[in-house]
Amino acid sequence: MIGHPAFPVEAWTVTETDLSPEIVAQTETLFTVANGYLGLRGNLEEGAPAYQPGSYLNGFYESRPTLSGDEPPSARVETNETQLNVTDGKIIRLSVNGSPLDLRTGRLRWHRRVLDMAGGELTRDLCWEGPRGGTVRVRTRRLASLATPELAAISYRVEALEEPVTVELTSSLVANESTQMREDDPREAAPLYGRVLLHRRAEVSGSRVLAAYTTRSSRLNVVTVADHEVTGHPSNPQPVQVPGEVGVRYRFLLEAGTSVTLTKLLAYEWSSERPIRELADAASAVVDRASAEGFDRIAERHRAVVRQFWDRADIEVDGDPEVQQGLRFGLYQLLQATAEAGELGVAAKGLTGQGYDGHRFWDSEVFLVPVLSRILPEAARALLAFRCRTLDAARARAKALGYAGALFPWRTISGIEVSSYFPEGTAAFHLAADIAYAVTTYIRATGDRAFLTQGGAELLVETARLWLSLGHHDPARGAFCIDEVTGPDEYSALVDNNLYTNVMAAANLSEAASVLRSMARDAPADYARIVTATGLEGAELDRFEQAAATMYVPYDEERGIHPQDDAFLHHRPFDLAALEKEHFPLLLHFHPLVLYGAQVVKQADVILALHLLGDRFDLEDKRRDFAYYEPITVHDSSLSASSHAVVAAELGQLEDALGYLRACVLVDLDNLADNVRDGVHLAGVASGWQAVVEGLAGFRQRAGGISFSPVLPKGLSRIRFCLLVAGARLGVEITGPGTTYRLEAGERVTFMHHGRTVALDATTPEVVVPNP
Amino acid sequence: MIGHPAFPVEAWTVTETDLSPEIVAQTETLFTVANGYLGLRGNLEEGAPAYQPGSYLNGFYESRPTLSGDEPPSARVETNETQLNVTDGKIIRLSVNGSPLDLRTGRLRWHRRVLDMAGGELTRDLCWEGPRGGTVRVRTRRLASLATPELAAISYRVEALEEPVTVELTSSLVANESTQMREDDPREAAPLYGRVLLHRRAEVSGSRVLAAYTTRSSRLNVVTVADHEVTGHPSNPQPVQVPGEVGVRYRFLLEAGTSVTLTKLLAYEWSSERPIRELADAASAVVDRASAEGFDRIAERHRAVVRQFWDRADIEVDGDPEVQQGLRFGLYQLLQATAEAGELGVAAKGLTGQGYDGHRFWDSEVFLVPVLSRILPEAARALLAFRCRTLDAARARAKALGYAGALFPWRTISGIEVSSYFPEGTAAFHLAADIAYAVTTYIRATGDRAFLTQGGAELLVETARLWLSLGHHDPARGAFCIDEVTGPDEYSALVDNNLYTNVMAAANLSEAASVLRSMARDAPADYARIVTATGLEGAELDRFEQAAATMYVPYDEERGIHPQDDAFLHHRPFDLAALEKEHFPLLLHFHPLVLYGAQVVKQADVILALHLLGDRFDLEDKRRDFAYYEPITVHDSSLSASSHAVVAAELGQLEDALGYLRACVLVDLDNLADNVRDGVHLAGVASGWQAVVEGLAGFRQRAGGISFSPVLPKGLSRIRFCLLVAGARLGVEITGPGTTYRLEAGERVTFMHHGRTVALDATTPEVVVPNP
Repeated sequence: MIGHPAFPVEAWTVTETDLSPEIVAQTETLFTVANGYLGLRGNLEEGAPAYQPGSYLNGFYESRPTLSGDEPPSARVETNETQLNVTDGKIIRLSVNGSPLDLRTGRLRWHRRVLDMAGGELTRDLCWEGPRGGTVRVRTRRLASLATPELAAISYRVEALEEPVTVELTSSLVANESTQMREDDPREAAPLYGRVLLHRRAEVSGSRVLAAYTTRSSRLNVVTVADHEVTGHPSNPQPVQVPGEVGVRYRFLLEAGTSVTLTKLLAYEWSSERPIRELADAASAVVDRASAEGFDRIAERHRAVVRQFWDRADIEVDGDPEVQQGLRFGLYQLLQATAEAGELGVAAKGLTGQGYDGHRFWDSEVFLVPVLSRILPEAARALLAFRCRTLDAARARAKALGYAGALFPWRTISGIEVSSYFPEGTAAFHLAADIAYAVTTYIRATGDRAFLTQGGAELLVETARLWLSLGHHDPARGAFCIDEVTGPDEYSALVDNNLYTNVMAAANLSEAASVLRSMARDAPADYARIVTATGLEGAELDRFEQAAATMYVPYDEERGIHPQDDAFLHHRPFDLAALEKEHFPLLLHFHPLVLYGAQVVKQADVILALHLLGDRFDLEDKRRDFAYYEPITVHDSSLSASSHAVVAAELGQLEDALGYLRACVLVDLDNLADNVRDGVHLAGVASGWQAVVEGLAGFRQRAGGISFSPVLPKGLSRIRFCLLVAGARLGVEITGPGTTYRLEAGERVTFMHHGRTVALDATTPEVVVPNP
Repeated sequence: MIGHPAFPVEAWTVTETDLSPEIVAQTETLFTVANGYLGLRGNLEEGAPAYQPGSYLNGFYESRPTLSGDEPPSARVETNETQLNVTDGKIIRLSVNGSPLDLRTGRLRWHRRVLDMAGGELTRDLCWEGPRGGTVRVRTRRLASLATPELAAISYRVEALEEPVTVELTSSLVANESTQMREDDPREAAPLYGRVLLHRRAEVSGSRVLAAYTTRSSRLNVVTVADHEVTGHPSNPQPVQVPGEVGVRYRFLLEAGTSVTLTKLLAYEWSSERPIRELADAASAVVDRASAEGFDRIAERHRAVVRQFWDRADIEVDGDPEVQQGLRFGLYQLLQATAEAGELGVAAKGLTGQGYDGHRFWDSEVFLVPVLSRILPEAARALLAFRCRTLDAARARAKALGYAGALFPWRTISGIEVSSYFPEGTAAFHLAADIAYAVTTYIRATGDRAFLTQGGAELLVETARLWLSLGHHDPARGAFCIDEVTGPDEYSALVDNNLYTNVMAAANLSEAASVLRSMARDAPADYARIVTATGLEGAELDRFEQAAATMYVPYDEERGIHPQDDAFLHHRPFDLAALEKEHFPLLLHFHPLVLYGAQVVKQADVILALHLLGDRFDLEDKRRDFAYYEPITVHDSSLSASSHAVVAAELGQLEDALGYLRACVLVDLDNLADNVRDGVHLAGVASGWQAVVEGLAGFRQRAGGISFSPVLPKGLSRIRFCLLVAGARLGVEITGPGTTYRLEAGERVTFMHHGRTVALDATTPEVVVPNP
């Protein structure tokens, strides 16, 4: 899509230089403003043309009964949950001399939108000649505040050019908007029928508007309050109230060359428990404070947070402007999705669309937490807290299926399992190990060991327990085996001894044992509390260790590679060369039986194991594994490219590494997966960070210590970033001749650079070391 | 249920000696009268109490969109089909002195129902004192004619006892009755919402009533015509017409000791193409002829067909009256389900209930055709013709999934795949080989080689082609392997190299090659027609043979047993000893992942291979296989016991064989599966024939010839049956000392008796040979 002429490549902005109706659906996603609490898709203020109007509140959903076919009843889940388009506060309708602004009528002299990632705003600038005469220039600014998460603000300025015009502005809150979503793509949201937001209150008082709704099935309350301020012209707001819509209308006669600016301040409050009245008071208070501040001050405080983020998170890359823009876009999406998400988890699409129904997946643990832990650790902690908060539901689910420990949901919003297709849902048991991996990674990055007593240790214990009850000792193999699982590659399902699952489970088991043993030794009171909370018995730690030590790791001696699972290497080859572009993603065009029985890989699976647990694998095995699996992997998931970039870099295949880095960061800007309309590929685009930091810079933090092995592929001349390691903030700048390491915060840090030890502290805060 | 005091054990009847409200649901099923074209559940004429009113027409269904969850879209099927309760012609409401007959009010002096399997009728005899006085005795007879399939008849006689009564009889046709089905048991039908039968015509003319409907989605037309005759009292029918019901009402003043008899003659006609008017004419013509005959003559012609059936199909067993009754019940259900089914296939429940939505399964080929071929060959041929008729749909389905040949539907009514859970649906590819097996078995029994040119050869070719495209040559094993299939045991799914599937596929491949090669040699014109119809190339037969010859047959050298599939023996054990009765069937209580990963077997799988293709297995292997699999098989399907009976008998485990025979034939009468309410287990109960003939009598007809090895388990003193072999009818009578074989029709037959050759012909039509 960046190939689209309307999109220049820029360092800090994403610009659409013209209105491009054919990409309205995509720009709605790309131009989302969000802060993790609320998200407003880049819909035009006038509401049309639109693909999918979207105003989202993180964790706010509608539930509905799950539809069932002839699967076994014990496999059924009762309820599905869908992220909901709530009250649309973006709507500001303009009419010029009685003609409503519609970019498909009249004459559009220019139309330009800019997502300013440095400033955290979406701006719009258009000039339109209405069909009944009158030419206006409209300039808008829109933001979702990172300083006050419940708050969004829109500034809407209309200027009369050339001649006087009569201008009418209707600003409202609209509920139950219809959408135009396509069907039969499982990556989209399932449609909800009928009106979901049930009317509770709708009020207009002067310039202030309030709308309150309760969802039909999930019974969540939501209140939206908007206040309006007009500058540049006297104003007299008239109430507008029709079913599903409440707002105010202004009428202005603008002399040529004069302008009027409408500022709309929007607050959203929601709850499953607090009543409408309480939410209304809270939202009104937010709007009161915002009105007192005014748009400029709101934007300033918001910008300060954005700036702080970039100070800690930015990656500078010289030599490839597209990668530079893509990396920033990915990091910016990560900020928008997670900053104020709280303990409600983060959807696969963040707050940019309804793809995957707004469900939370393993993306969070394997692709978000490892990045956030290094650049936005509070958000990483909140993501882990989401799993702590839903641990009881996961325990109940494990029990219901006859397992021990915790069985976290493959798809969820509230914490219950809502995936109805267990072969690619519940069977993806690796999620348990992914969560444990995220806990470990977060603590290594931040040094926040206190998190262990605040839920972290319980997560480790309960996930380890799941493995013990899922797996069994196979006497024929003399090893601990785990059967009937689905690994990350969903083009194989219900396999035995998936390599990734087994080695990640082993890590989970040994980490749980190790952490609990340390705690028993060093903090017996904390240990006692964990024992009370989990009923842990000492012998369990022995069993964890034994299962980890005897974990079956499939290996093919003849080929010197790791089979993806017991059956994979026996399956028939899949003729990828015979396919055309329109056959992808394969899941839309080939029956799962065809895919499951063939040697075709949807996304990094063995390769992901090599990436996350690289110290468990021999380098030459890695080389052979990569050579075997890479050509049969189709990357039909955006969760594939980053691990390929990392392993390719480790193997010295720098051109491949750069190619996979580009695939990460351009997935949305170039619409590589052809479904940006449904929301950004949050984990995919954010994993560009991993491709750079763990790939090109070769950063690792394992139990054995921290290391870098920076390389620069042809075409890149400099990379600069900083990251948290063991609680210290380290700046890294890679150029051709050498790498500069700088201790930016923290007392000391010691690491390896290409096998050479480097130590930084207050006396030696910076060193430059040559690259090989 | 026969344990129920209301049910004595009898040889030719099933009697309920009292009204037992707690088993109303079960008796509705057991007392069904049907002929394969139409079926009337054993609902009371007055309509209540009822569990599920049922009037079924074979092949008549409503369609609806399939509900989908988050499975891959390429796995979705668009449409489901459900057998429909059509216009209820059974309804005859009696009121006595103004009080409607309701067995839950007034006083019931007696109530007795008898299913007369020798005569083919259901009779009812009750005596009721109405709450407003007046005591009546009601005697009814009900049949679905095996002489005129569109016709059912009810004779309803009311007698005033002790005092005069005013009697009102309302006989009607009722549509869209509500049901009380339970939920969350996949073996039941899925509910249909709203009225499915759309009103087209409803007419009353004198004593004749007509009701015509069209189904909402499937657009099938159905017309029911009823005519009434009254004897014993002057009559004056009054029309009754309310929405959904049309009928006639009679009013009689019966003197004490007098009676009146209402005869209701019912004709059903339906079509997807013929218009209502045409169907109405046809149904009226049926009723015209029936009225001319009268009830007694109708019953007589019907009884003649039943008698002929028993002449050919009866099995006499001395020594176990329950087995005797159960065997006859099973055979009678087979007659009722298949006799006039035509080429529309036969539902898993026949026409006795809506269980499994009325879908057709592999039951037909593996459990019905092999029995029907020996006792009711026209019905066997019609069942095979159903597959011929739907071959094009199966070709299209194979093509849609990227396979060659024909992929027949796992569940269907019309011929399209309607199973929405492919791991236990489409993945059960063995259906293809089952169909080929049925073709072979039918021809061996009947000698009807003409069937090959009437669709049989095409079935063999197209199913063989499927295997070639499904499987592949695995270089590591040097064998033809078939991956990602589900065998008969649905507690394992998506496995590689399921033993049953592989050996059945090999048989299919070699049979197709052999039949086509013979045809090319012996009937070149026929062969040319098959080549034209299928595009067969000569080299394909080589490939069939090569795949068959190199088919991978899993074998565990160490244990000397056949693994059910590549993974099975590696899976964890399943602790059956820890389970209680209420944990069964396991599919209702254990998540499929738990079952799939454990060594627990739902139903005969390896054992079924040993049964159907026993000549491919060594006797000592069979013994070890049976010893391994039998203890871990839970028989959660009724399609399990017969093969266990057959293999147990072959291994000389006669007590086991008798036990499994009892499990076959008592599954419904004793309600062993606790769901007789939804219909009989047609294949299960009919497979009692296999348990006796292939089990105790040790009958086999393989490519190598025909053989018997009769044994009598303790408790049985005599078994007598007859069967078709190679077109000849052979009578067999087994007693302790010896077995009498008698050629009852046909020119000659030669077979082995316990290894000794026996030849029968016109000169020696009967021999007695000693048993070992």
